[in-house]
Amino acid sequence: MGSVFGKNIKLSLFGESHGEAIGCVIDGFPNGIKIDNDFIELEMERRRAKNSSISTTRNEKDKVEILSGLLENKTTGMPIAAIIRNENKRSGDYSNLKIMPRPSHSDFTAMIRYQNYNDIRGGGHFSGRLTAPLVFAGALCKLALKEKFGINIAAHIKQIYNIKDKYPNDRLPSYKEFVNNYKKELSVFDNDAMNEMIKIIKEAKMNMDSVGGIITVVAFNVPVGFGEPFFSSIESRIAESMFGVPAVKGIEFGLGFDFVNYKGSECNDAYTIKNNKIKTKTNNNGGILGGISNGMPIVVNVAIKPTPSIAKEQLTLNIKTKKEEKLIIKGRHDPCIAVRAVPVLEAALSVALLDLCVEMKGKFLK
Amino acid sequence: MGSVFGKNIKLSLFGESHGEAIGCVIDGFPNGIKIDNDFIELEMERRRAKNSSISTTRNEKDKVEILSGLLENKTTGMPIAAIIRNENKRSGDYSNLKIMPRPSHSDFTAMIRYQNYNDIRGGGHFSGRLTAPLVFAGALCKLALKEKFGINIAAHIKQIYNIKDKYPNDRLPSYKEFVNNYKKELSVFDNDAMNEMIKIIKEAKMNMDSVGGIITVVAFNVPVGFGEPFFSSIESRIAESMFGVPAVKGIEFGLGFDFVNYKGSECNDAYTIKNNKIKTKTNNNGGILGGISNGMPIVVNVAIKPTPSIAKEQLTLNIKTKKEEKLIIKGRHDPCIAVRAVPVLEAALSVALLDLCVEMKGKFLK
Amino acid sequence: MGSVFGKNIKLSLFGESHGEAIGCVIDGFPNGIKIDNDFIELEMERRRAKNSSISTTRNEKDKVEILSGLLENKTTGMPIAAIIRNENKRSGDYSNLKIMPRPSHSDFTAMIRYQNYNDIRGGGHFSGRLTAPLVFAGALCKLALKEKFGINIAAHIKQIYNIKDKYPNDRLPSYKEFVNNYKKELSVFDNDAMNEMIKIIKEAKMNMDSVGGIITVVAFNVPVGFGEPFFSSIESRIAESMFGVPAVKGIEFGLGFDFVNYKGSECNDAYTIKNNKIKTKTNNNGGILGGISNGMPIVVNVAIKPTPSIAKEQLTLNIKTKKEEKLIIKGRHDPCIAVRAVPVLEAALSVALLDLCVEMKGKFLK
Amino acid sequence: MGSVFGKNIKLSLFGESHGEAIGCVIDGFPNGIKIDNDFIELEMERRRAKNSSISTTRNEKDKVEILSGLLENKTTGMPIAAIIRNENKRSGDYSNLKIMPRPSHSDFTAMIRYQNYNDIRGGGHFSGRLTAPLVFAGALCKLALKEKFGINIAAHIKQIYNIKDKYPNDRLPSYKEFVNNYKKELSVFDNDAMNEMIKIIKEAKMNMDSVGGIITVVAFNVPVGFGEPFFSSIESRIAESMFGVPAVKGIEFGLGFDFVNYKGSECNDAYTIKNNKIKTKTNNNGGILGGISNGMPIVVNVAIKPTPSIAKEQLTLNIKTKKEEKLIIKGRHDPCIAVRAVPVLEAALSVALLDLCVEMKGKFLK
Repeated sequence: MGSVFGKNIKLSLFGESHGEAIGCVIDGFPNGIKIDNDFIELEMERRRAKNSSISTTRNEKDKVEILSGLLENKTTGMPIAAIIRNENKRSGDYSNLKIMPRPSHSDFTAMIRYQNYNDIRGGGHFSGRLTAPLVFAGALCKLALKEKFGINIAAHIKQIYNIKDKYPNDRLPSYKEFVNNYKKELSVFDNDAMNEMIKIIKEAKMNMDSVGGIITVVAFNVPVGFGEPFFSSIESRIAESMFGVPAVKGIEFGLGFDFVNYKGSECNDAYTIKNNKIKTKTNNNGGILGGISNGMPIVVNVAIKPTPSIAKEQLTLNIKTKKEEKLIIKGRHDPCIAVRAVPVLEAALSVALLDLCVEMKGKFLK
Repeated sequence: MGSVFGKNIKLSLFGESHGEAIGCVIDGFPNGIKIDNDFIELEMERRRAKNSSISTTRNEKDKVEILSGLLENKTTGMPIAAIIRNENKRSGDYSNLKIMPRPSHSDFTAMIRYQNYNDIRGGGHFSGRLTAPLVFAGALCKLALKEKFGINIAAHIKQIYNIKDKYPNDRLPSYKEFVNNYKKELSVFDNDAMNEMIKIIKEAKMNMDSVGGIITVVAFNVPVGFGEPFFSSIESRIAESMFGVPAVKGIEFGLGFDFVNYKGSECNDAYTIKNNKIKTKTNNNGGILGGISNGMPIVVNVAIKPTPSIAKEQLTLNIKTKKEEKLIIKGRHDPCIAVRAVPVLEAALSVALLDLCVEMKGKFLK
Repeated sequence: MGSVFGKNIKLSLFGESHGEAIGCVIDGFPNGIKIDNDFIELEMERRRAKNSSISTTRNEKDKVEILSGLLENKTTGMPIAAIIRNENKRSGDYSNLKIMPRPSHSDFTAMIRYQNYNDIRGGGHFSGRLTAPLVFAGALCKLALKEKFGINIAAHIKQIYNIKDKYPNDRLPSYKEFVNNYKKELSVFDNDAMNEMIKIIKEAKMNMDSVGGIITVVAFNVPVGFGEPFFSSIESRIAESMFGVPAVKGIEFGLGFDFVNYKGSECNDAYTIKNNKIKTKTNNNGGILGGISNGMPIVVNVAIKPTPSIAKEQLTLNIKTKKEEKLIIKGRHDPCIAVRAVPVLEAALSVALLDLCVEMKGKFLK
Repeated sequence: MGSVFGKNIKLSLFGESHGEAIGCVIDGFPNGIKIDNDFIELEMERRRAKNSSISTTRNEKDKVEILSGLLENKTTGMPIAAIIRNENKRSGDYSNLKIMPRPSHSDFTAMIRYQNYNDIRGGGHFSGRLTAPLVFAGALCKLALKEKFGINIAAHIKQIYNIKDKYPNDRLPSYKEFVNNYKKELSVFDNDAMNEMIKIIKEAKMNMDSVGGIITVVAFNVPVGFGEPFFSSIESRIAESMFGVPAVKGIEFGLGFDFVNYKGSECNDAYTIKNNKIKTKTNNNGGILGGISNGMPIVVNVAIKPTPSIAKEQLTLNIKTKKEEKLIIKGRHDPCIAVRAVPVLEAALSVALLDLCVEMKGKFLK
C-alpha cells in the first residue's frame, strides 16, 4: 500500500522534498542487531550528491536522527523511526509546474491522482530525496542480513548510455571486489569504462540534457530454498521493491531479456558439486528457480531512465490554456540519476530480502 | 503470500499437475458483472496446447466448473471458485526427478523449500498447468475491466529467438488489431515473422531443444491518475503479478532497458491535446509516470526463458551419489512456452489492473 | 479481505448455501503434516446437525473432497483446496426475502452492499453452512498445531440462555476433560446444566423461537513469547477470526468484561514456578499479556446471539411498499446456533493460532 | 503486522516511553482534508493526564510536530508523519523489572518475545504513552470521516468498578450530548455516577490499588451497506484495532454478551421507516448485520482491565533466583486507565472506520 513495503517487516517512507523532514519507520525489524553507525553513515554518503560536475548542486548533509527502536546501540525489535530534516530547499523554483507539467515526470499524474492537493515543490513526495530514508533502511537491513545470514548485497553500474562496464576475468566479481569500487568516482569495475561514463555524463550536463543507465545488484550467500512459487516468487518480491525506486523502468534476473537469444540446451544451469555444496555451473537464472533461491548469487539488472528534469528547453502543455508552450525547468537536477541509484537499489534489494528471510525463518530468526 | 495475489481482490491458485484438480478462488470480485461464457471459453482455448508440432502433446479440455459466486449469469460479489479436473496425467514419467533434478527447473529448489514433501510429478504446483485457472481468472477480470472502465487488454509475441514481430505502420496497433491476431497460429502481426517463428520452434522441437521469447502486453483505455508512488506504483503491482507466471525472467515498461540508449531530450514524453484530452506525443514511459497512469496505453514487455525441460540429453547432479549423471527428461513439454504465455500474461495484467481499479474506485465501483 | 483470513497462511472460504458447492483453499499451510482423516471426519461430525429436536432438520453429509496439497497423506506445503457439494437444498423457501428482509439477518445489508446481485437463497454466502469448510480448515490447523507445537484446542458451552455450565473442582479442566464432553449431546461439563440447556432449546424450538449462548474456547500449551503489541496482539488476531463466524457479537479474554468487578491487587496474575517453568498463579489475563502469550492457556469467551431466523411471526418492512408487514420465515433453522458453534469457534481459534505460529517460527517451522 | 494497522490506510505507531520521541505515520490518508488544529489539540488534551488525584503525575504537553503530508493546512494524500518528543522521563524507576517482572504487565512476555533486547523503561513501546500518537491519528481520521461522510465518533464511560453510567431518557444520546460530557471531569452522562466513579478511583489511588472500567464507543451516521462477511466484517476490523489498545480485554457489539439473556423474538431488530429511511426499531445488533453496517449507530463496548502497575506491594518471581519476592513498583501510574482510554478508543474506532470507508468508496472518496 502506498509508500509502505513488506509483508513481515513494514517499511513506511514519508516526507516531501521541500517539507519539514523526510524519514521512515521500519516495523518488525529483528531484535538484537548491532547498529554500526559508521556503516550507516558510509551508505548515506554513497547516495549523497558529491562531484557537482556529474550530479545535482543541491547538497544536503542528510543527517539521520533515529527516534526509536534502539537501546545501547542494538535494535530492540520495536519500530525504528528515523528522520532527516530538509535544509537546502528553494521552493520558488517550482511555482509554475501545476499548469506546466514537466514531461515524463509525475507532475501531471500526481495532480490528477491527488485531486490537485499534492505538494509539487521539488517533486514533493515523488522526489528522489525520498531515497535517502530508503538507503538508511537498507543499511539496517544489510546489517541484519549479514549478522543473521551472512548475506551481502552490492551493486555496480553496468551501463551508462552506450558505455558498458566489464567484469575482470569475465566472471561475477566477489562481494569484496564490488565494495572496492565504492571508493571510485563511480561504482564501475573497468576504469576506462568509468572514465567514458563520466565524460558522457558531463557532456549531458553541459548540453542541459540527461542520460540513463543499467545497474546490476547482487545478493551473495542467500541460503537455498527461500521463496515461493507464483506471486510470492523472489522475483515478484524484488520487483515490487525495485519499482518503488523513482525512474526504474525495467528489471530482469540473470540473463533476463537476453534469454531470448539462447536455446534451452545452451542456457540451462547444470547442477554440480562445489566445496561439497550443490551449485550450478552457470547462473543464467540469477539465483532463482521456481521463485525460490538455488544458492547461487541473486543477480538483478535494473533499468533507470534518463532524468526527465532537464535544463534544455522543452515543449509541454499549458493545462489552463490547453496550448503547447515552451518550458524551461529550473531547480537542480542530476544529469544521470543512475549514478546515485547504486546504493538505493541495493537498499531496495536488502529490504526485500530481509522481509523474505524473516518470513522463512520467523520473527525469532532462529 | 504464496499463490495468492491482490490487495483488494484476492486470487488464490491451487492444484498440482497430476493431482485431482487445479483451480482458483477470486475473493472480492465486483458484483453485477455479466459472465460471457463464450469469451471465457475462447480465452481458455487460446491457452490450450493445439498444434502439436509447436506445443506439448499433452492436450486437455480444461473444462472449467464454476462452483460459487454467480447467480443468473452475473457475479454476486461473493467469492468465485472454479475447478478444472486433471484428465490426461501420466505420472510414471517423473519418478527419478527427486534425485536427478532437472536443470533450470524448480525440482531442486522446491525440494529444499518444502523439505522433500512437495509433489514433484509434472512439476506439481509449479507446473505451467496452473496458468489455466489464471487465464480463467483473467477472463473474468477482463470482463469487469471492460464493463466498468472500458479497459481492454491484449498481447502479441514481440520476439521468438532471433525473430522479431513488426507493427504495421510502425505505431502501436489498436486493441481490435491485436485481437485479429488471435485467429492466427501465433499472435504475431507480421506474417513473415510468424512463419519464421513457427519454423524456429519446429526446429527446436526436432532438435529436442527449446527457445524463449518476449511478449508485449498492452492495456488500452486505463483512466488517468490511477496508481501510487513507491512500492504501490503500477509497475510494482504489475511486476508482482507477471513474475508470478512461471518462466518469466524480465519485465520492462515502455522503452524499458532501451531507455539507456536515449538522452532525456530524446525520450521525454511531451504533453499535447488530442480529441480534447491531455495525451503525450510519444509513449516511451509505457503509460505510467511516478507509478501512476497518464492516460496512455500501458505497455509491458515480458521475457520468457526457453522451456527448461528439453528432451535432449543433459548433465545433472545425482543428489544421492553426488555425482554428475546424464539426464533424459521424459514427459511432454512445449518447445516454446512463450507461445502459450500470451493469454497468460494478459491474464496476469488483467488481475493486477482490476485490483488497482477496485482500490481506486472502491468496492461499489462507482 | 472479504472471506480470506491470515497473514502467513491464507484461508479463503467460498460458496453459497444453495449453490453448487462450498469449500476453502488454505495457502501457506506447513508441509509434512500427517493428515488424520478420522480426526477430520470427527470434527465435521461435531458440527453436523444431528438431534433434530435441538437443531435444524437440514442434514447434510458434508463430505469433504480434498483436491490439492496432499501427497501420500501428508501435506506438501502447496495450497490445500477442498470442496463440499451441496445436496439438500430447497431454494423455494427463500423467494420473498428480497423485499421482506428478515430482522437481525444479513438480507438487507447484503442487498445494499452487493447492489442487489447477491444470492439470498438460504442466506447465500452468509449462511452458517460456510462454517463447514471452516471446521475442515480448523481440523487441519489443529493437526499442525499439535504435531509441531503440542498445542491443543478445545471448547465447551459456558452458557445457554440463563443456564451456566460449571467446571468440576472449580478449575480449568484439562484438554482431555474437554474432549470427553464431545461424546455428550452438548459440550458441557455439568450434566445437570446440560439437561437444562437441552430443555431450554427444545422449548425455544417448540415456541418457534431461539436462544443464544456463550462458548469458552481454550488453547493449551501455547509457547511463551508468541505475539506482538498493538494491532498484532494475539487478542487482535483471534478477535479478527472469531468475528468472522456468523452470529458472534462479543469476545473477551480471561476475565474480560468481568475485570470491571476487580481491583488490580485482586486480579493481577502473580508469577511463580511450576515444574521448573515460569507460570502465573491465576490466569485472569487468559494467557496473554501485552498482546503476547505468557505460557498459560489462552482462554476466550465468545457471545453468540439467538438465531435471528425464527419461525414465529414477526414484523418487517416491505422494501417495495414501504409498509410494515407480517413475516413468516420458512426454511429449516437451528433454535440455538451456539450448540453447533463449538467446533466452529475452535476452528477459528486454530486458524488464528497456526497463522501466528508460522509467523513466529517461519515457513520451515523449525 | 506489529504496530501497523489498516488495509487501505496504514497507521504505523513508533516510540518508547523513555526514548527520544513517540509518533506515527499515516499512509494513504485521503487528500484535501482540512486540518483543524484546535480540534486536534482538544483531542490530545482529552487524553492528557490532568487531575493528579485520579491520574498519573507524569504530565506531558505532548506537543505534536507534523513533519509531512500537509500543504496550506490541507492533507496532500501523502504519508502524514508526526512526532511527539518525550520530555518528562525518569528512567531510573524501572531498573529491576528485567529480573522482577510486574504481574499482569508485558515485562515478562516482551522479554521472551524480544530475546531480552527490548527497552523495558516505562514499559518501552508497550507503554500507554503510545496512545498519544494514536489519538492524534484518530483526530485526523475523525476530521476525514466527518468531512467526507458526516460520520461522528464519540464515547462515554459506561462503568467504573461497580458504578454504572445511565443515559438520560433511557435512549442512546445524540453525538452532541456525548460531546457535552467532554467538559466534565469524566465523560459520564449521569453526574451522580460520575462523582461516585471519581470517589472510587481516588480510593483506589489512596490504597495504592487500581480499578478497571467499560467504555462505550459509538459511530453515528455510518452509511448502510459498508463492510463484508466473515473475516472482513466490521466487527473483525474494529476488534482488531480496539485490541491494539493496551489493557483492552473484551469487546462486544450492541447487546454483546447480554444477548444470552434474550430470546430471538425479544431481541431481533425489526425494520421500519423513519424519515423516509429504512431503520430498525431497536439496535440490539449495534448497527452491524452480517458484518455490514445497517444504517444504525455502531455501538461498541470495550472492557479495560485495572491498571496492572499498582503501588501496593505484590509478590512476583525473581527470574534469576527463581524465588518469589516482594515487588514494590515505582514510577507514576494511573489508578484507572479507563478514564483516559475514552479518546483513545474513539481514535481506534475512527481509524478502523476510515480504513473501511476508503475501501468502500475508493482512494478518491467519490
